Amino acid sequence: MSLGQISQRAGEWLRGAGPQSEVVISSRIRLARNLAGFPFVGRASKAQQQEVVQRCQEEVMSGRLGAGLIWVDLTQSTALDRQLLVERQLASRQHVKATLDLPRAVAIGADETFAIMVNEEDHLRVQVLRSGMQVGDAFAQINAIDDTLEEHLDFAYAKRFGYLTACPTNVGSGIRVSVMLHLPALKLTGEIEKVRRAARDMHLAVRGLFGEGSEAQGDLYQISNQTTLGRSEQEILTYFQHSVVPQVIAYETKARMALLQQRQWELDDKIWRAWAVLTHARVMGTEEVLSLLSHLRLGVNLGRIDTVDIPTINELLLLTQPAHLQRVAGRELDPASRRRARADLIRQRLAAK
Amino acid sequence: MSLGQISQRAGEWLRGAGPQSEVVISSRIRLARNLAGFPFVGRASKAQQQEVVQRCQEEVMSGRLGAGLIWVDLTQSTALDRQLLVERQLASRQHVKATLDLPRAVAIGADETFAIMVNEEDHLRVQVLRSGMQVGDAFAQINAIDDTLEEHLDFAYAKRFGYLTACPTNVGSGIRVSVMLHLPALKLTGEIEKVRRAARDMHLAVRGLFGEGSEAQGDLYQISNQTTLGRSEQEILTYFQHSVVPQVIAYETKARMALLQQRQWELDDKIWRAWAVLTHARVMGTEEVLSLLSHLRLGVNLGRIDTVDIPTINELLLLTQPAHLQRVAGRELDPASRRRARADLIRQRLAAK
Repeated sequence: MSLGQISQRAGEWLRGAGPQSEVVISSRIRLARNLAGFPFVGRASKAQQQEVVQRCQEEVMSGRLGAGLIWVDLTQSTALDRQLLVERQLASRQHVKATLDLPRAVAIGADETFAIMVNEEDHLRVQVLRSGMQVGDAFAQINAIDDTLEEHLDFAYAKRFGYLTACPTNVGSGIRVSVMLHLPALKLTGEIEKVRRAARDMHLAVRGLFGEGSEAQGDLYQISNQTTLGRSEQEILTYFQHSVVPQVIAYETKARMALLQQRQWELDDKIWRAWAVLTHARVMGTEEVLSLLSHLRLGVNLGRIDTVDIPTINELLLLTQPAHLQRVAGRELDPASRRRARADLIRQRLAAK
Repeated sequence: MSLGQISQRAGEWLRGAGPQSEVVISSRIRLARNLAGFPFVGRASKAQQQEVVQRCQEEVMSGRLGAGLIWVDLTQSTALDRQLLVERQLASRQHVKATLDLPRAVAIGADETFAIMVNEEDHLRVQVLRSGMQVGDAFAQINAIDDTLEEHLDFAYAKRFGYLTACPTNVGSGIRVSVMLHLPALKLTGEIEKVRRAARDMHLAVRGLFGEGSEAQGDLYQISNQTTLGRSEQEILTYFQHSVVPQVIAYETKARMALLQQRQWELDDKIWRAWAVLTHARVMGTEEVLSLLSHLRLGVNLGRIDTVDIPTINELLLLTQPAHLQRVAGRELDPASRRRARADLIRQRLAAK
């Protein structure tokens, strides 16, 4: 299994299934861990960084985390592959953009249900991804991975604080829960700003599809907890499962019903225009694709259009990203060629359905 | 023949044929005449205005101008019918918007090749319309109409000035030549401003589809002479036939070739998006329709799309205007309903092709 093989299809988080997948695209849980006896990444020498990578590789690739893992040494990878990892949510922008000679890696679990970044901000950043609202299952899996790793790795830990991390916001359980929500109706009705404000008041971070600082393209919002100190993992999980996510789902559902009842023409107009442009355009940028796919997804979920299904929409969301597009084309493409290749790919995939 | 019957199809100026119709939508010639012995419209009493209408009606409807003329008494017409006349370019906005009790009328010639406004700014405003570049033919016809009218009507005339008119810019021959040009490529390449400036320097007026002050919607530009005093009719005609129009056609054609050669993807993108949106939208305003039809027209004229023909595009251009839309629907529609009816009509007409 190589990066080349996984680039032709969507991974676990875009499977388009799972509970409440009409609003919740995916659930993600991340843990931050550091090896005891080594300085944090930012303060380690290159030799120490290299040693951390080796220790982690031995353990991660030992077979104890299951079969079929892919180990990607980022210092040996192409720029396109690194970008591919970001597009698939398997590595952060920060991780792949570090100076090339910083020893670091990404391990990708079977079916992309988990990934482990080595020498990102912390020595180990483990993440588990699930389609739909599955933070409970994701938590069970990440706990198992954490336990397995800890059998042979000595993690930096202080009784008073919990697990130690490079950034104080991750100290403690080191857990970050994140759900990717599709909120097109709240966007169309203008209520999204209320949700953003409410989230801020609850000390939650609201980000776009590609994490920190990225705009909420395609009406996709990642909501995650900001701090982990002083709260148990279970408290954070429960908060997401029984408070945050059900509330946002209820708002979005109400807004969708309001659109259906009060603005059905306008709604259908947006949906059919999205379908029309996607199936006819000759040139297209990523931002427009995400916006059109968002309206199409809303249309499918509300039963207003049946010319396409959710897995195809998810596949297009991923395959039209720059690195994926170039992987599918089998060569590097300049930005103008990408815009054309993107439109061609979309027309082909949608015509084939 | 009534207004109701003519509202279901496009008239002469949108026939989509005639010389150089790939750029020249239509040619129009207008004459201004006043009856001797009556004050100009703005200075006449209501009784005098009424007398002018009667004298004109007797002469215009005498049969000497041919059969099949329609006489529309604007004081007895509905607001929808008056708007219909403007949309068909048979009457000016100014003429139909005058106070309702001002005696005035419009006579429409067979096949809408000519129209005569009575008591607009002048007692008689005769216009002849032709599809494509046919100012010569139009001039021959308007001359014949003028001669016929003058057999029994005494026109205000001064040896020194020529025909007298309410506005000094029309004094002399009283002739205004106007061509409606479709200039999408000059718009796309940004060169349209150069053409506008050149036209201004040549003392030509450049207006949009619906005359004075209207924006150039749908990339349709009306170019006309500004003054008539001191220039013979033949000079003005020759100027349009051999200088102004061939030059603008050459610019537009060059710009179209440049688009085809250097920006073909972008061009096809615009054309196919226009087709896509027109055949799928559920809600649409007039401005967007004109813009999309413009790209579609360009596509057909350049042989890039064959899913539609020019007569259908012209028909849609007219039938999607507010008054026509309501005529086709058979009832008055509020603005929101019009936007839906417009999208429905377009989808139906394009699907039928």
